[in-house]
Amino acid sequence: MIKVGIVGGTGYTGVELLRLLARHPEVELRAITSRKEAGMPVAEMFPNLRGRVKLAFSTPEDADLERCDVVFFATPNGVAMQQTRALLDAGVKVIDLAADFRIKDIAVWQQWYKMEHACPDLVAEAVYGLPEINRDRIRRARLIANPGCYPTAVQLGFLPLVEAGVVDTGFLIADAKSGVSGAGRKAEVATLFAEAADNFKAYAVAGHRHWPEIKQGLEIFAGKAVGFTFVPHLTPLIRGIHATLYAKASADLDLQALFETRYAGEPFVDVLPAGAHPETRSVRGANVCRIAVHRPQGSDTVVVLSVIDNLVKGAAGQAVQNMNIMFELAEDTALADVGMLP
Amino acid sequence: MIKVGIVGGTGYTGVELLRLLARHPEVELRAITSRKEAGMPVAEMFPNLRGRVKLAFSTPEDADLERCDVVFFATPNGVAMQQTRALLDAGVKVIDLAADFRIKDIAVWQQWYKMEHACPDLVAEAVYGLPEINRDRIRRARLIANPGCYPTAVQLGFLPLVEAGVVDTGFLIADAKSGVSGAGRKAEVATLFAEAADNFKAYAVAGHRHWPEIKQGLEIFAGKAVGFTFVPHLTPLIRGIHATLYAKASADLDLQALFETRYAGEPFVDVLPAGAHPETRSVRGANVCRIAVHRPQGSDTVVVLSVIDNLVKGAAGQAVQNMNIMFELAEDTALADVGMLP
Amino acid sequence: MIKVGIVGGTGYTGVELLRLLARHPEVELRAITSRKEAGMPVAEMFPNLRGRVKLAFSTPEDADLERCDVVFFATPNGVAMQQTRALLDAGVKVIDLAADFRIKDIAVWQQWYKMEHACPDLVAEAVYGLPEINRDRIRRARLIANPGCYPTAVQLGFLPLVEAGVVDTGFLIADAKSGVSGAGRKAEVATLFAEAADNFKAYAVAGHRHWPEIKQGLEIFAGKAVGFTFVPHLTPLIRGIHATLYAKASADLDLQALFETRYAGEPFVDVLPAGAHPETRSVRGANVCRIAVHRPQGSDTVVVLSVIDNLVKGAAGQAVQNMNIMFELAEDTALADVGMLP
Amino acid sequence: MIKVGIVGGTGYTGVELLRLLARHPEVELRAITSRKEAGMPVAEMFPNLRGRVKLAFSTPEDADLERCDVVFFATPNGVAMQQTRALLDAGVKVIDLAADFRIKDIAVWQQWYKMEHACPDLVAEAVYGLPEINRDRIRRARLIANPGCYPTAVQLGFLPLVEAGVVDTGFLIADAKSGVSGAGRKAEVATLFAEAADNFKAYAVAGHRHWPEIKQGLEIFAGKAVGFTFVPHLTPLIRGIHATLYAKASADLDLQALFETRYAGEPFVDVLPAGAHPETRSVRGANVCRIAVHRPQGSDTVVVLSVIDNLVKGAAGQAVQNMNIMFELAEDTALADVGMLP
Repeated sequence: MIKVGIVGGTGYTGVELLRLLARHPEVELRAITSRKEAGMPVAEMFPNLRGRVKLAFSTPEDADLERCDVVFFATPNGVAMQQTRALLDAGVKVIDLAADFRIKDIAVWQQWYKMEHACPDLVAEAVYGLPEINRDRIRRARLIANPGCYPTAVQLGFLPLVEAGVVDTGFLIADAKSGVSGAGRKAEVATLFAEAADNFKAYAVAGHRHWPEIKQGLEIFAGKAVGFTFVPHLTPLIRGIHATLYAKASADLDLQALFETRYAGEPFVDVLPAGAHPETRSVRGANVCRIAVHRPQGSDTVVVLSVIDNLVKGAAGQAVQNMNIMFELAEDTALADVGMLP
Repeated sequence: MIKVGIVGGTGYTGVELLRLLARHPEVELRAITSRKEAGMPVAEMFPNLRGRVKLAFSTPEDADLERCDVVFFATPNGVAMQQTRALLDAGVKVIDLAADFRIKDIAVWQQWYKMEHACPDLVAEAVYGLPEINRDRIRRARLIANPGCYPTAVQLGFLPLVEAGVVDTGFLIADAKSGVSGAGRKAEVATLFAEAADNFKAYAVAGHRHWPEIKQGLEIFAGKAVGFTFVPHLTPLIRGIHATLYAKASADLDLQALFETRYAGEPFVDVLPAGAHPETRSVRGANVCRIAVHRPQGSDTVVVLSVIDNLVKGAAGQAVQNMNIMFELAEDTALADVGMLP
Repeated sequence: MIKVGIVGGTGYTGVELLRLLARHPEVELRAITSRKEAGMPVAEMFPNLRGRVKLAFSTPEDADLERCDVVFFATPNGVAMQQTRALLDAGVKVIDLAADFRIKDIAVWQQWYKMEHACPDLVAEAVYGLPEINRDRIRRARLIANPGCYPTAVQLGFLPLVEAGVVDTGFLIADAKSGVSGAGRKAEVATLFAEAADNFKAYAVAGHRHWPEIKQGLEIFAGKAVGFTFVPHLTPLIRGIHATLYAKASADLDLQALFETRYAGEPFVDVLPAGAHPETRSVRGANVCRIAVHRPQGSDTVVVLSVIDNLVKGAAGQAVQNMNIMFELAEDTALADVGMLP
Repeated sequence: MIKVGIVGGTGYTGVELLRLLARHPEVELRAITSRKEAGMPVAEMFPNLRGRVKLAFSTPEDADLERCDVVFFATPNGVAMQQTRALLDAGVKVIDLAADFRIKDIAVWQQWYKMEHACPDLVAEAVYGLPEINRDRIRRARLIANPGCYPTAVQLGFLPLVEAGVVDTGFLIADAKSGVSGAGRKAEVATLFAEAADNFKAYAVAGHRHWPEIKQGLEIFAGKAVGFTFVPHLTPLIRGIHATLYAKASADLDLQALFETRYAGEPFVDVLPAGAHPETRSVRGANVCRIAVHRPQGSDTVVVLSVIDNLVKGAAGQAVQNMNIMFELAEDTALADVGMLP
């Protein structure tokens, strides 16, 4: 059994990790930390876990994380980088669901995350945990930077086009819509029900932290600098991201075949038939990215539609997928949930 | 492997049966019928099932249901009663998710369902599939009348009180609230998003078909006639029923202990600690009924709060639970989903 | 023109007052205070008011409220009682939308609101601002205790029955459902979109502050002590309260006629035809309480359905109605909005 | 008083027209037709109108529309073109809220609307009712083609850029999101609450009828052919459209000033301050288009955010605005509602 610890389990990625890991046949949950809630049974905060997770929150001191095989950080940005080295030194693998190890260029990271990085060398070592591009490196990694939610949906949507060099990489656009759980389980006015229900808005058009993360990925796929515009929106969903991607075709190719070929054999990317429109609810609770590619009105504009559940393929599910790969388990262990529709 | 057929798979209970059965390790899905959609792959109508259910809808004629071990009817009322005898005669067990076999008094059934019953003798034979009261009879049954959604939540909430004879059974009130999926997957104006979202209303106050079903159950628990008022409401949830039950205490008892004792050992009824308020989302997608009992302000009014997912413990999940019992499987096989929160 | 001041304009009742008063032809908005937001234009916080309300928030010191004709308190409980005497002394009328002056029994108030009352004599003077029972006293009042949202819906629903003495007042039940804006515009986890959407729950079953307020009203209507149970629920609406009321008939009366007669001539209470079910959206944004009365299944249980918009007839609209009465204006001035459906 | 008739009042644009016209001081509602519902009081179908609209639906024969001053068509496409000529001949002005007169190129119209046009000459005469570009022509018109909802939001967002010639008109993109009321009040599975809630999807990417309407407008603004991609999405709002527009800057201009200047004096277009993000709820129920313009990350991509209420500025409100202009009334008569927030 894999001994698992979770740091910071009081947010949505934390409870989602617990939902998935509670049914993982190879996992033994050892500890879940929250200094503030130490002593409270997890199932008291999250009643869906009643009868399924017996753990109580513990202080970091009591958690004895160094005896785990793997530790997930479901913490705010800036926490994992403080604690990762000690864990790695103790032989513990680390999967960070926050952004501490995602961006290779430390200066860029520091500019967007407004703090100094505690361990640039570990950033260099960390593997970006998108299995569809890094599966082999994940298998051998000690430290995984689990991708952001928007970056997962957007990169998987652009990947075949940019890798194949069939679009103008100087003018890539991602118009992305996220459910409100993406903002986290934090007491804030802007994400109250009475503010976010029956309302739709863009936000952070001037600059969102996922922009440099996605840009970094696209430039790796392209092998060169790209021009990329990212506009996120808040939409009245609990869960779900829908990314609508726009690019100008620079070559005449069978795009449907391109996508199907690229993702053949990928267990968690589903290319829909030509003409289809993926729905976020088709992946609600499931570790799947569903994608459709269009070229409307015979124009040279390519439109890609890409959906994920931001808490599953966009966070906790992908983290478990990475763990499965790292521990040589069947990649879909505990990830077989069917999307909950309706 | 249990060979399973489903009649009428294009509604919400149908797709929910498929979501659950797709991961059932002892089940082989053999056929799902829809005369109207014959030939269409199920996963085309319900894209959450892509890659998980390969079946296409078939006509009843092609489905060869008599070679199944069990057939679920996820059909409108009045269909199962036409086809059940032939299946039973062929040695097939039948679980009807509609109302054809729920009410023992044929005259009452005919009054509420506005049609003549096709097989009163089978009504007499059918076992009401609420495992918490009928587990042994379910085990030996050929024909199960799967309870309605409201009746499951309301009966499980009242059961300990009425069985124990500690409330005035002449004045029982159930104020029940249902998500919109309870109205089914039917093209109707009243359940459009733009009608039902951001709106709350009671309906059918003059009389709802679940009233006689619940009354029948309460009278069995009580061993005598009861006075029972039932007011259903439509609330902007996709899934979920919340029943708030009111009764006048006629004895001074530790109600918390009464409930805990009655449901000790029940795998799918969860009695919350004193003072708690169950939330529908804590059972979203899960085959669980969560219950809390209160006696506010030291009065003699007992208030019971009971929540289920109307499509799971209120329909498809309970049907699978009944099948597990009938086939001597572990009762929670394929029913271990944790409620999806958030 | 009536010179109006608002204390505490950053919550939902504050912005709703502004929405209504911005179009009131007899009102001149003089000041709106918020110590925290002093200097910020109101329309920056509430962009629906752009181009319609030019005021900026000011400090209480700068607001010069004593030169207003009337001041509305849209503040947390406990604020108005500190400032009311000075305003009254300066000849300013006061309408408190919080609970400071609603409960006549100071001991009861102090028990439920967990603070000492600053001015019991003003509680004695204050008029409870439910025009349907106190219109004449409101006309002559200096100080109005604007009713709570639940109390408005519940009292208007019970009023005809209890006044007429046709129900058993020993066992009155109010099962009430509120939209999330009722919890206010406060940063809290429990009312986040991702917590409150697609979820339904009861809360405060052990005791809610509106229980003594409603009980006080019912006892005035009845002229004696009553037995009253109140169970509030949170439902995924932005606005709206639906109260479902239960009582045991003690006399055989034409209830439809009773309600229609009682509310004949009331501009803001609408008794629906027999058999109807009021919907919260039919009063969305409108200063109306719609009511239907039922007696299901020929039983002796009376069921009353009562809906309001918690921010309008349940708060700001009723406050403006009270102001109109106090200043001898047409009672529906600025209150003619039609409910927004869909 | 202007005598008004409405043809086809059982849909959402119909009830919204009634909500607005019920408070219009210069309007006398004479008739509202629905062959199917003839005889039913309008307020029975739409209870928000109780006490405010006394009319019952009448058959077209009984409606005597030729004695009205103006008739609104709130009908499916293809109805208005059958009845308009007779009304115009009788001296009645006509405002069509459907698409019969929007597209000047009859062949294009017939291709997208799949029917033969009944009166191409009236298409030539009809004035496209977007006051921000056609106010003077509207004033003199007999026949108004009221713009579609998406076309209103998208054209008002692109107008300043395209008119000024500061973007590459060969690659214009509109990513638009609509609330579900945009699909109308029709019994359909796809727009049921249980289908559309907590779900987000694109639709009609291959081609939507509003594409040629918008393209026609953009080409008029540009004075030449344009390349235009339009991707509509369904989002779980009751009301609201959010259009996110992308273009490549071809000149270096102060975009904020460009927008503010273009819309200075427009009563129903509100240009937000630089850096702002308009929210759909800020225009809920209001006849306003709010717009913000961005140029993120110093790139040459221009992003415009444009929001309307699809039933108000996107349909019924704009129709009333057109009527006000045609009858020389103050343009904002009956259109002064403040957006309902929350």
